[in-house]
Amino acid sequence: MQNDISSQVSIIPLGGLGEFGLNMMVYETEDDIIVIDTGFMLPNADMPGVDLIFPDIHYLVERKAKVRGILLTHGHEDHIGALAYVLQQIDAPVFGTQLTLSIASGRLKEYGVLGKAELNAITLGDKVDLGAFSAEFIHVTHSIPDSVAIALRTPVGVIVHTGDFKFDSTPVIGKLSDIQSLARLGAEGVQLLLSDSTNANWQGQTPSERSIYDSIDNIFQKTEQKLFLCTFSSSIHRLQQFVDLAAKHHRLVAVTGRSLTNNIRIATELGHLKMNPDYLIDARDVALFKPHEVVILSTGSQGEPRSAMALMALDNHPFLNVEPNDTVVISARIIPGNEKSVGNVVNHLLRRGAKIYHERNANVHVSGHGSSEDLKLMINLLQPKFFIPIHGEYQNLVRHAELAESVGIPRDNIRVAEDGELICITPDSCEVFERQGRSGRVLVDGKPEIELEDIVLRDRIQLSQDGMVIPIVVLHSDGKEIATEPEIISRGFVYMDESEELFTEAKEITRGVIENLTNEQKQETEIVQDEIRTVLRRFFSKQMKRSPLVLPVVMRV
Amino acid sequence: MQNDISSQVSIIPLGGLGEFGLNMMVYETEDDIIVIDTGFMLPNADMPGVDLIFPDIHYLVERKAKVRGILLTHGHEDHIGALAYVLQQIDAPVFGTQLTLSIASGRLKEYGVLGKAELNAITLGDKVDLGAFSAEFIHVTHSIPDSVAIALRTPVGVIVHTGDFKFDSTPVIGKLSDIQSLARLGAEGVQLLLSDSTNANWQGQTPSERSIYDSIDNIFQKTEQKLFLCTFSSSIHRLQQFVDLAAKHHRLVAVTGRSLTNNIRIATELGHLKMNPDYLIDARDVALFKPHEVVILSTGSQGEPRSAMALMALDNHPFLNVEPNDTVVISARIIPGNEKSVGNVVNHLLRRGAKIYHERNANVHVSGHGSSEDLKLMINLLQPKFFIPIHGEYQNLVRHAELAESVGIPRDNIRVAEDGELICITPDSCEVFERQGRSGRVLVDGKPEIELEDIVLRDRIQLSQDGMVIPIVVLHSDGKEIATEPEIISRGFVYMDESEELFTEAKEITRGVIENLTNEQKQETEIVQDEIRTVLRRFFSKQMKRSPLVLPVVMRV
Repeated sequence: MQNDISSQVSIIPLGGLGEFGLNMMVYETEDDIIVIDTGFMLPNADMPGVDLIFPDIHYLVERKAKVRGILLTHGHEDHIGALAYVLQQIDAPVFGTQLTLSIASGRLKEYGVLGKAELNAITLGDKVDLGAFSAEFIHVTHSIPDSVAIALRTPVGVIVHTGDFKFDSTPVIGKLSDIQSLARLGAEGVQLLLSDSTNANWQGQTPSERSIYDSIDNIFQKTEQKLFLCTFSSSIHRLQQFVDLAAKHHRLVAVTGRSLTNNIRIATELGHLKMNPDYLIDARDVALFKPHEVVILSTGSQGEPRSAMALMALDNHPFLNVEPNDTVVISARIIPGNEKSVGNVVNHLLRRGAKIYHERNANVHVSGHGSSEDLKLMINLLQPKFFIPIHGEYQNLVRHAELAESVGIPRDNIRVAEDGELICITPDSCEVFERQGRSGRVLVDGKPEIELEDIVLRDRIQLSQDGMVIPIVVLHSDGKEIATEPEIISRGFVYMDESEELFTEAKEITRGVIENLTNEQKQETEIVQDEIRTVLRRFFSKQMKRSPLVLPVVMRV
Repeated sequence: MQNDISSQVSIIPLGGLGEFGLNMMVYETEDDIIVIDTGFMLPNADMPGVDLIFPDIHYLVERKAKVRGILLTHGHEDHIGALAYVLQQIDAPVFGTQLTLSIASGRLKEYGVLGKAELNAITLGDKVDLGAFSAEFIHVTHSIPDSVAIALRTPVGVIVHTGDFKFDSTPVIGKLSDIQSLARLGAEGVQLLLSDSTNANWQGQTPSERSIYDSIDNIFQKTEQKLFLCTFSSSIHRLQQFVDLAAKHHRLVAVTGRSLTNNIRIATELGHLKMNPDYLIDARDVALFKPHEVVILSTGSQGEPRSAMALMALDNHPFLNVEPNDTVVISARIIPGNEKSVGNVVNHLLRRGAKIYHERNANVHVSGHGSSEDLKLMINLLQPKFFIPIHGEYQNLVRHAELAESVGIPRDNIRVAEDGELICITPDSCEVFERQGRSGRVLVDGKPEIELEDIVLRDRIQLSQDGMVIPIVVLHSDGKEIATEPEIISRGFVYMDESEELFTEAKEITRGVIENLTNEQKQETEIVQDEIRTVLRRFFSKQMKRSPLVLPVVMRV
């Protein structure tokens, strides 16, 4: 694997190959490293108490003197959400478009690294030299403006890393994807393409962002009372259409949610979002207007329990409410895993008499990721020698590899790699190896600098299954006698108020266990604990068919 | 609400109106009660440790002398899964088709109530008199054979309860839905229709079960190695097509999974499933044959971690394995909430080099529930005076109500009711009231006769969020002095091996708290506990930004 090291680039996926989110890729030569994207990921329901997931960046930290730059493709959290975490551990200049950097700055400030961060705003077409690499930023359309693909000139040739993209022929904000530059690179010769696999399983071409305009227009027309429009706070194109339609239908715009308010401010300042400030009202003033005079922009499209939308669904919002004949539009993809929480919100809104539109009953959302035909077009424009699918679960990567084969990339030139592996590319070859050293994910609960260990997570899951029982015995320090009656505390196992008998018996059993031990055994805390644990587990299993965690405590006085 | 009680029927939804699963409906006159269906429900991820959910049947138990019969529409667990639980508490004859009763018997045996259960097999068209009610069983097509709708003749007129159905014009097994009988009832006059809302949000008509045959046939043709076909164990029509295709393609059939084996046996004995026993091989013998000579029928379509399919995906199955170029077909709906677990299984199977077909990339599954056009046809056949949508979340019920209105049922004659309410129907009216008394769900973890209390579940969820910390202090019984150093145990909070310092400090803080209390305060266990809890919570929150459950224990010697 180590032939002529001067003409070799190592590519190390720290995240995003084998999962959605956590996108982070390291490109390395003998002397230099650049990083593309630093994303985070939100936890699943099977990770109780976890707030965030970061990629494990030990690989990078161990080589931090080599890091020449961090390049960001766009301002979505699955691409920039770990930037603060990375900058806490590594000093390197950051490059991205202005919108991307502005959105990222919020969290940098929160983490206290904004001051030391060296943020370099690039404009489209810019070329940046970073050691052995030279990076060119190429505009692509996506659900957030100012998105780029990155073409790296490297010692082994041109490597193109697409970021997230689709080919939107009629984008709402900004230009088309820069097909000309992509075609030019293709003509010059691309050694390796790494391309977004998110929607590889989707047929055809992803419709334009503009394709939902008529349908939302129609909803505006039909709505006689308040109108709530719910989307991701970063969906600036979507928000532009909302405010355009609000103006058309003479509704004032109220915004709820901190991230939405921030992003609207940033996008307006940078000139991406164009709206007449006279149309903006404070969300607290909605009640001052007639229902047909307002539209409320809100987050909470995923049914997040603390979002404005979820609070309104339960009529718990401090100053906004959903009333009969109000209309709620969920203009966002329902992310797999969130169906239940979104469903709950929808059910409650319907109980309040609202009309609901979502992607499953109306044309109110379109994806920002290219479908199979967009992906084929990207490959055909670049005509790469080697191809590696990125961004997605294994099934998406495999499907994207099939698409690449279908447009003529030889099967032997396609590599499906995953996090934790190492890709070595030379002028003639592209191989995947297992990687030594740490890789994986860092779970964050509470302080971001304190990692949540897997074992703690496993304990949480075990505690949640059948709860816990803690028998406490106090022995005299000579070890022969019980100093006081055993105590038992328990949570998540049975309803204690109605289980007095069960615990009285459990205490007697505990006392019995001690009395049956020899004096020598009583001196050994571990033996006492083991005996109590074994006997009580058997007892609870027989009585309740449940298996709580039994954690005996032996104190000595 | 209580006019002439002799011409009133009360309808009490104990489950299934406001959720999927748990279907159970009580029909009541002054002297008589009948029950239609006794379903259970599987828990969501937000109910850790819960095995099963039953409807709360207190309403029925309080009136058990009035119960004349339990009528079952078909053999799916969301309609029969709580039968044993109900029969443990109520003596009543059970009526259902033979297949339904045979499937139900398994669990009755398990619960030890098979001996006392009075099971009455009905044949289609049978009429059964049960006090003030007379029930007629009408065949409908669904994903399991021998399904029925039930027409009740009552003092207020005919009430039709559809059970699950679709109008399949070319069913694989058995007859068409009995459109003639439904039309006859419609002509005679139907007072109230209660109809299945599961797929009310789906456009058009649900395709025939037979519509997937060609696509599965094609997969058989293309598969050169082992073929795994994964479906629900009760999908007898689906299994019939699988075994037919196995015969056509000269593959032997191996069956894995207890429920699948049982249902195949029952359905074969009753003549629903027709297969040549010579084609059956023991799943343990699969390895004795060439890969292209076998097809393996398996459960695990929802990615259940202990299913054969999930074990094979991880190469943990004792005698079956998935190898490169094997093909796996997931011929089932991916139930919302199961996307992640199914996705995990698919990813692992792909890593083994298998080809995967599922409902999202091939025509390998079709629903057993009618879509909007089937639902409209049912309403048009019966032309009921009043209409109540059943089976589904609130959004499905609302959508079905809209469909009923669209085919001419006056809006004022449509009632969207939910569990916990009471529907009163007279010859002239149909009204919904709030119901007094207990209603809801019974959570089962372990022994089915012991209910899991909501508070225990809440404790489990809290334990799973940030874990727990239990500080233990032993005081001399005069209350003035600490008898031994405080002890702290903890799980699910931090990794204890790396947090020695944190706990040493926490112990010192605990000791400090005690020392700062007055002698009077030390005598009051609750005061000691409160002080320790407050101080430690603040400490952990500051140090870790986590909020474990802190449960101080005070022992006295």
